[in-house]
Amino acid sequence: MLSFENDYSYGACPQIIDRLAAINDTAYPGYGSDDLCASAKSRIKDACDAPDAGVWFLVGGTQTNQTVIDSVLPQYAGVVTVESGHPNVHEAGAIEATGHKVITLPQHDGKLNPDDLASYCEAFYADDNHEHMVFPGMVYISHSTEYGTIYTKSELESIAAVSHRYGMPLYVDGARLGYALTATGTDVTLADLARIVDVLYIGGTKVGALFGEAVVFMNRDEFSRAPKHFLTLIKRHGALLAKGWLLGLQFDTLFSDGLYLRIARRANEAADRIRAALRERGYTLTFDAPTNQIFITVDAATRQRLERHVRLGFMEKADDTHVVVRICTGWSTTDEQVDELIALL
Amino acid sequence: MLSFENDYSYGACPQIIDRLAAINDTAYPGYGSDDLCASAKSRIKDACDAPDAGVWFLVGGTQTNQTVIDSVLPQYAGVVTVESGHPNVHEAGAIEATGHKVITLPQHDGKLNPDDLASYCEAFYADDNHEHMVFPGMVYISHSTEYGTIYTKSELESIAAVSHRYGMPLYVDGARLGYALTATGTDVTLADLARIVDVLYIGGTKVGALFGEAVVFMNRDEFSRAPKHFLTLIKRHGALLAKGWLLGLQFDTLFSDGLYLRIARRANEAADRIRAALRERGYTLTFDAPTNQIFITVDAATRQRLERHVRLGFMEKADDTHVVVRICTGWSTTDEQVDELIALL
Amino acid sequence: MLSFENDYSYGACPQIIDRLAAINDTAYPGYGSDDLCASAKSRIKDACDAPDAGVWFLVGGTQTNQTVIDSVLPQYAGVVTVESGHPNVHEAGAIEATGHKVITLPQHDGKLNPDDLASYCEAFYADDNHEHMVFPGMVYISHSTEYGTIYTKSELESIAAVSHRYGMPLYVDGARLGYALTATGTDVTLADLARIVDVLYIGGTKVGALFGEAVVFMNRDEFSRAPKHFLTLIKRHGALLAKGWLLGLQFDTLFSDGLYLRIARRANEAADRIRAALRERGYTLTFDAPTNQIFITVDAATRQRLERHVRLGFMEKADDTHVVVRICTGWSTTDEQVDELIALL
Amino acid sequence: MLSFENDYSYGACPQIIDRLAAINDTAYPGYGSDDLCASAKSRIKDACDAPDAGVWFLVGGTQTNQTVIDSVLPQYAGVVTVESGHPNVHEAGAIEATGHKVITLPQHDGKLNPDDLASYCEAFYADDNHEHMVFPGMVYISHSTEYGTIYTKSELESIAAVSHRYGMPLYVDGARLGYALTATGTDVTLADLARIVDVLYIGGTKVGALFGEAVVFMNRDEFSRAPKHFLTLIKRHGALLAKGWLLGLQFDTLFSDGLYLRIARRANEAADRIRAALRERGYTLTFDAPTNQIFITVDAATRQRLERHVRLGFMEKADDTHVVVRICTGWSTTDEQVDELIALL
Repeated sequence: MLSFENDYSYGACPQIIDRLAAINDTAYPGYGSDDLCASAKSRIKDACDAPDAGVWFLVGGTQTNQTVIDSVLPQYAGVVTVESGHPNVHEAGAIEATGHKVITLPQHDGKLNPDDLASYCEAFYADDNHEHMVFPGMVYISHSTEYGTIYTKSELESIAAVSHRYGMPLYVDGARLGYALTATGTDVTLADLARIVDVLYIGGTKVGALFGEAVVFMNRDEFSRAPKHFLTLIKRHGALLAKGWLLGLQFDTLFSDGLYLRIARRANEAADRIRAALRERGYTLTFDAPTNQIFITVDAATRQRLERHVRLGFMEKADDTHVVVRICTGWSTTDEQVDELIALL
Repeated sequence: MLSFENDYSYGACPQIIDRLAAINDTAYPGYGSDDLCASAKSRIKDACDAPDAGVWFLVGGTQTNQTVIDSVLPQYAGVVTVESGHPNVHEAGAIEATGHKVITLPQHDGKLNPDDLASYCEAFYADDNHEHMVFPGMVYISHSTEYGTIYTKSELESIAAVSHRYGMPLYVDGARLGYALTATGTDVTLADLARIVDVLYIGGTKVGALFGEAVVFMNRDEFSRAPKHFLTLIKRHGALLAKGWLLGLQFDTLFSDGLYLRIARRANEAADRIRAALRERGYTLTFDAPTNQIFITVDAATRQRLERHVRLGFMEKADDTHVVVRICTGWSTTDEQVDELIALL
Repeated sequence: MLSFENDYSYGACPQIIDRLAAINDTAYPGYGSDDLCASAKSRIKDACDAPDAGVWFLVGGTQTNQTVIDSVLPQYAGVVTVESGHPNVHEAGAIEATGHKVITLPQHDGKLNPDDLASYCEAFYADDNHEHMVFPGMVYISHSTEYGTIYTKSELESIAAVSHRYGMPLYVDGARLGYALTATGTDVTLADLARIVDVLYIGGTKVGALFGEAVVFMNRDEFSRAPKHFLTLIKRHGALLAKGWLLGLQFDTLFSDGLYLRIARRANEAADRIRAALRERGYTLTFDAPTNQIFITVDAATRQRLERHVRLGFMEKADDTHVVVRICTGWSTTDEQVDELIALL
Repeated sequence: MLSFENDYSYGACPQIIDRLAAINDTAYPGYGSDDLCASAKSRIKDACDAPDAGVWFLVGGTQTNQTVIDSVLPQYAGVVTVESGHPNVHEAGAIEATGHKVITLPQHDGKLNPDDLASYCEAFYADDNHEHMVFPGMVYISHSTEYGTIYTKSELESIAAVSHRYGMPLYVDGARLGYALTATGTDVTLADLARIVDVLYIGGTKVGALFGEAVVFMNRDEFSRAPKHFLTLIKRHGALLAKGWLLGLQFDTLFSDGLYLRIARRANEAADRIRAALRERGYTLTFDAPTNQIFITVDAATRQRLERHVRLGFMEKADDTHVVVRICTGWSTTDEQVDELIALL
């Protein structure tokens, strides 16, 4: 059985597994105060071209969103996201669990539109009753989005401009950041992103690591400042890994020799081949997305036929006779797997 | 200056003020353990025809919604309401502050449609990923709604049926319940409501009291059971009034000799007269609503002309040249005030 | 039956009841944006000699503690109080409900000792693991305390000095502030308090009002600054009274013509007379306290004898044969009630 | 430099590292729905002799305590623990962050005394005001404790009896459970524990795993029932690992061929040798504890001398001239390391 179900079905890059084995008899101090974390942080700051940034390592994506958003938001404020945003839909209320509203705007192929954001903020502050309402306190976007789409540099700059005009930090969920940064046609580099946005996380779980997400606060101005005692806040969320060097090791490896972007690019190339084959065979691609997630709108018979040989992700009903399913490549996808899949289409 | 700004601009029914003065030198035990509260509870249960109900008195509406919703919902669940629902818009995130999501469905003249509710629930449980999502845990409606509209008995029964099918109590915010129960054409009595829904609150603040809301749990079945140690939960929310007899006194007075419904009916009659005059003069009524709140869509000039002599509530922009404003009668509205207003229209 | 059970058993000063009746037909804007609130705030700032202070009105004590403490504390911090402090014992977990730990130090006749506070803070910051612990974020004291005792000016200054040395605002719960400020032998005025501490609340519920507490942020420096959007935070806690002028009216009345202190002083004088009689008859006073709360340690027979004629507050078992009971005077206590009680002792 | 600093300084048992490498190219479904988790759960239920138990895997200890305690406690209740309990001291307020008070009783060599618990509960329910207080809702103990001490079977049975008499589940934090179950002289087996208590977690992080804790709900009666939708609650706490099979693999390995207890016993034997040497050389052992944590009370000179060659854990000042330091063995401690340490003493 082939698996194109998601990008977190396999362990980790062999380099990580090897290195884990190699350091297994070395004693490290706990909670991220070790040399591997220090080295990884340094490499990430270099990759971001952000020498003043603060870097922290957490274990998973929902945990990271919960910890960052709760730490950044004032009590009177919520986080603004599109309706399809992960914290609004698939985090089991982890944001609300910390006392904050998720404020939703319409999604456009999974993306936030800066004009929607500006209109909403303008109307909010024009409302006589806005002191009885949840203030917009930060902006959350994901890059790539839930639908595999990506922002252009100009879109990011527009969203950041609106966010800052209304006093909000802009936060980027980069669970699949590697795939976004290496998509065909993107004009956004990691350094661009680090310059434009205020805080981001670089996803490891879906891009080559066993687990782990690296949070980067830019520490550039009032918007991008890391929350005071952030380590304590991580602990308070139950999110501080005892053996922190496991996270340091993984990110140190991923950010050595360009590994992170290299493995992500391979996944995109695999997806590009699959997309080409799908188009050639007349499939309907649900979104025009250049990253490792491919959504196709198919009828029940097609879905059933495919799923006899390959595990796919189910997304939602499109209409009474069609569903949207996801084909997902990843850092571990091999040419052979792609060939086999294409043969099945 | 006339005031039709809202229904909480004036003190309280003279009967309440008189009685407050009369008992001022009597000592009462604290926190609602007094005879006035006992009497008021008994009268409310009679009016609801719900002898097994449990009645508690709180001070304000947002406080009541927060305390009830937080106490009823399991941790994995949120409250379902229409987008225009008070807890979603005008409670400053008081529900999310307790860790729960407000799940929104479209409003239809401010009302929840039972089919929308059923479709949403069906899709939720059909979703393979629903364990990663906030469960729908209770249903919130208001009667009358934010737009002054009311539910029919049949609509309430349908909503209750769907709610119960999916394991959810149905909760009615009755901030303006008096006005709903005495609206021209309604087929819903307080006893009907108490039979159909699981928990409700009877609003005092907007219907003749200085302040105060009476929460009624029906204690009829699994859905309508009062939360264990509810008094402690009220205290934990900072919502337990030390001089609880002030609440008992007010509700005891309102539920003697039919006062509550009588004063509400008068406000509706005043609104009916105003509505007739508005229609006669060609105004656009924004909603077809039979209670004490009248929304009209007017141009800027009309608004400005009216507001020279009468304080109105502003609601929102309708389009570039029109706004929606609210004319609100109340238990204290006099015939003279109505005459004056009509003369200005 | 006499009642010396507590200081919240009676309605309100007649001046307040009269004025409530007098303004019952006047329309006021909601949520504290009225002239009565404005006037009351001005009088309170005058009484505090704190022209830059910010004043807000809430309904009850637990609600006020919850709202203030939650609004002031950073997420990584808890509030420091003595073990017998009201938020630690009798608020049903209202502070923890907002996500914050109550950090306890030993009480000395109900009071916090500045040296205990300094030792605790010093040890905290000296602990290598303190980033895994809840930071001390603000200091809570009550004046008078749960046991009726009061702080001297010098004690308050010492506590404030330690608090500020460790970056913490000092907050005074003044549920019974009137009684503290008019106790025989006190050297602390309201203006002293406002100069020394950072935020306080002036209790109305127990000192002449039907309900209501006035929160005063001094707005003097980093420690005493009112939280941003505090009105929204009040609303988020369900603590914003719709008919805010009811609070304004009460505090405007209490702070006119020295009423607040005058009625409090009368209660202390009544307590002084009772204390003298108790001492004369050989009773054991549990604490050496000069305010309206008198605690006596009595055997079961004495308790039973007294409670045939007067309602007292029960506090706790002292030992196998003795209990501590409370005799509480209040703003409404009359000379006749005191005479009757003394005759019973 | 030797390291006896703690028991989470090294990676994992070689069996785990090898197996991780071996399955690195196998695709698994996410979030714990894989075969490795199924197998591990089955082995753990066998080891507990608890076929009806429910097993879940989380990543870390604070996270596990937060998720379990928050999921089990009713809103009106707190968790009872000794003052030195981990959730009270070293979890940065993670319990309070979920809205619950940590209720503390005195520790006796780190242990909870059942009589203390009974007295506290009796007094609580006897208090007239207990509805204004946080109810005791569950009991937390750790086995072994923070000080390396362990409970006897009889002590556990007594604590469980008191807990159940007052309606509380008994929860055991087993971060170091392996060391407790294999200590010289213990009469408590895992099956005993599973029979006596209601929910426990089996610690992996400190006993041979890279990370991971296994929560076991006994599902035996009302006290031990797993919370409804516990998977969703784990997700809501940000505690659901995407690659759940990493946890399954580790616990499947640890619970194969008695590995978990075998490696723990070795650590205890190492500690026993060190303890014997310490006693022989006249050191003061702070506690009489039979597990892998050894606390010694030493003067500054001794501490300085030791720390030139070995990393130790610092605990606290004992008096002006002495400190308590910790020597901690672990599953990875070698005979050579023990020899070297003993030579230094």
